[in-house]
Amino acid sequence: MIKVIAISRQFGSGGRTIGKETAKLLGIPCYDREIIEKVSQNCGFSKEYVENQGEYANHRSWLGRAFDGANRFDGMTNQDKIWVEQRKIILDIAEKPCVIVGRCADYILRDRDDVLKAFIHADDVSRAERIVKLYGEKDDKPEKRLKDKDKRRAAYYKYYTETEWGVAANYHISLDSGKLGIDGCVKILAHIYGAI
Amino acid sequence: MIKVIAISRQFGSGGRTIGKETAKLLGIPCYDREIIEKVSQNCGFSKEYVENQGEYANHRSWLGRAFDGANRFDGMTNQDKIWVEQRKIILDIAEKPCVIVGRCADYILRDRDDVLKAFIHADDVSRAERIVKLYGEKDDKPEKRLKDKDKRRAAYYKYYTETEWGVAANYHISLDSGKLGIDGCVKILAHIYGAI
Repeated sequence: MIKVIAISRQFGSGGRTIGKETAKLLGIPCYDREIIEKVSQNCGFSKEYVENQGEYANHRSWLGRAFDGANRFDGMTNQDKIWVEQRKIILDIAEKPCVIVGRCADYILRDRDDVLKAFIHADDVSRAERIVKLYGEKDDKPEKRLKDKDKRRAAYYKYYTETEWGVAANYHISLDSGKLGIDGCVKILAHIYGAI
Repeated sequence: MIKVIAISRQFGSGGRTIGKETAKLLGIPCYDREIIEKVSQNCGFSKEYVENQGEYANHRSWLGRAFDGANRFDGMTNQDKIWVEQRKIILDIAEKPCVIVGRCADYILRDRDDVLKAFIHADDVSRAERIVKLYGEKDDKPEKRLKDKDKRRAAYYKYYTETEWGVAANYHISLDSGKLGIDGCVKILAHIYGAI
């Protein structure tokens, strides 16, 4: 019996939309930006800061972690504090049926039998089209934006979970939203939620 | 519209059974050992030799490839010859609706829009139980057998395809048969076959 779906996703794969739509179909809540807001309220950091530090490795600060006194209190960096707070919030919301997008929820809930760990990915062309449509053109080309963001997500994931982001064996199901469609992925996840 | 399902699988994950059952449900043929038999007929190598050389890197021969004159004709090793023949047979059978298990069919058919590339995996405990049930106890422990066989499959795949085996982004769908069940995986694949 599945109670919680934890979705990891490549940037631009539509993982967030798939989470929201699956939750809607199942009549359960979906948590994504809500987690950022809660962490911001509890820790006092701005939402923008939490959004960035709570899922992405920051090259400058990550290289400088060991020597960066200004960013530390009680032996913890701000990023560590956000990790701890995010973890608490995820454990709390996962007590009831829900979908959780990103923020290593799949790892945080890894020991629970009632959690389905999903990974959403897509080919570079579909993802580039999607980010330009959703977030507009930027100075960097879409391909560079995809690469940079995925690299920082993977590094963050690796640092806090010590496992590899995007390796099939680390998830119960991985879906290519470019091939299967956003709706197709929603139907498959909703089917599994009800079926096992 | 999907015409062919190409299944890659971890050793002991039930990928072959999932392929057979999905094909049965869809009323289309499933090719697995049949490919070995065809290669054996066409090349003159024994079935056992084709089975081993057509999907697994052999540490001795792979290390010795460059210097191993005895295993070469026309600049090709026996393994290269089997690869070429397997590739021809896979391209041929993929002209009609079917399921193909293993043998890098996902890579060989990668440019076709009507091919669904699936990867089946499972946790080590489920896989160890399965191989002991199917193939019996051996001198090596099940965990070692799983590790050795997956390592050789991954090395073979990498050598001939130059892509990584088991990375979610290389497949359209990856399923954990330990979590979703053999039947669960069959239903999802058959659903996609009819749906997109």
